[in-house]
Amino acid sequence: MKFDILTLFPGMFDGPFAESIIRRAVDNGLIDIRLHNIRDYAFDRHKTTDDYPYGGGAGMVMKVEPLAACIETVRAERAAARVILTTPRGKPFDQATARRLAEEKELIIICGRYEGVDERVRELYVDEELSLGDYVLTGGEIAAMVIVDAVSRLVPDVLGSADSAAADSFCDGLLEYPHYTRPPEFRGLQVPEVLLSGNHQEIARWRRRQALQKTLMVRPDLLATARLSAEDEKYLQELAKV
Amino acid sequence: MKFDILTLFPGMFDGPFAESIIRRAVDNGLIDIRLHNIRDYAFDRHKTTDDYPYGGGAGMVMKVEPLAACIETVRAERAAARVILTTPRGKPFDQATARRLAEEKELIIICGRYEGVDERVRELYVDEELSLGDYVLTGGEIAAMVIVDAVSRLVPDVLGSADSAAADSFCDGLLEYPHYTRPPEFRGLQVPEVLLSGNHQEIARWRRRQALQKTLMVRPDLLATARLSAEDEKYLQELAKV
Repeated sequence: MKFDILTLFPGMFDGPFAESIIRRAVDNGLIDIRLHNIRDYAFDRHKTTDDYPYGGGAGMVMKVEPLAACIETVRAERAAARVILTTPRGKPFDQATARRLAEEKELIIICGRYEGVDERVRELYVDEELSLGDYVLTGGEIAAMVIVDAVSRLVPDVLGSADSAAADSFCDGLLEYPHYTRPPEFRGLQVPEVLLSGNHQEIARWRRRQALQKTLMVRPDLLATARLSAEDEKYLQELAKV
Repeated sequence: MKFDILTLFPGMFDGPFAESIIRRAVDNGLIDIRLHNIRDYAFDRHKTTDDYPYGGGAGMVMKVEPLAACIETVRAERAAARVILTTPRGKPFDQATARRLAEEKELIIICGRYEGVDERVRELYVDEELSLGDYVLTGGEIAAMVIVDAVSRLVPDVLGSADSAAADSFCDGLLEYPHYTRPPEFRGLQVPEVLLSGNHQEIARWRRRQALQKTLMVRPDLLATARLSAEDEKYLQELAKV
């Protein structure tokens, strides 16, 4: 998978991809991440990349010409690339979107800044606008990091077998059950006895019920689309009675 | 606002806070960001910070002792700190949460990794579990970057007057209208005439309708909670008829 990130602040990406799973995937040639400074494609003397909005209002708008030049240069080498714009105006990014994007071979991610980018960039080049969530960020750079991270994990061979189960935590649509590791007691708090029992069926049942309970408390909206068994439904009804 | 970030990968934060608005806020003493390497608080010879889960299953769990030692050390200097754990099991982070957290003076953010952290960390120390969205990330580090960025923007004086309007883009609960800047024509695409008209009332009306239309197409769920005027409602009904 080849990622090309178009940004006014390439320095922001120095650390985030330099560790752990993403670093290893880059080192192993499974993914490739290139950064492009949009400012390098501004043709005027002052390297202008933003300007006042037509129609007035606060803030600045990213100009179409430098972005167009940057996108066209990158696309010359990435003919099949899907072009993504990170913006609060986009569809919410989720695990299903990450799975779909992981099927692509090339992704170009444009990091929006300021009030936004000139609408003609979207009309001419953008295949998909994505939003991380309903909050306002300084720019699309951190959003691009999220997308690269979430998508890269789903590229074949990026996760070792030990990691791969983690990718499944949204698979059945519930929040995860709680985890415990050694020591068995800490500050008077014990690991639940069932986890030490060695009874795998009991453990699986306890975990499932904990996941259902957590989801009911924190994200009841997920229950509408989660894959639930008859036993799950019964347990949820019991919880609702309390 | 003082942020203390607890992580196994402090190097990931090298770039993201070194630019633009966050950089300026740090330089001006409006916000303070400290990184703490959880591994420095592991007391055994191998500096172990993770271990196998009780009850079996794939992946590793972050141990309670190093985290406890790290949190307690940081809290000794940050008595009023609210402790946040970034995890897909948390409540979805949104702009209202960012606004609430911006009222705090001190935030400690724990970056979860692997399958998750020992549940006793949550029970003993965590005030709030937050999730960025319904996708799986390699770790909580990028989530911490999002929280620091979104919250810092709302700390008084961090945004200049020119920036501050941007923070309001979720205020009325609609997606933003499209932006345009010079030139008036690019590759045959014109800036909408109304934006060049100088008629501020017409411009405001056009922008509002564009925002309503975009929201209806991309995020109809937002219309249920958006603040809508009678005229807005009428326009939405017209759109629905087409």
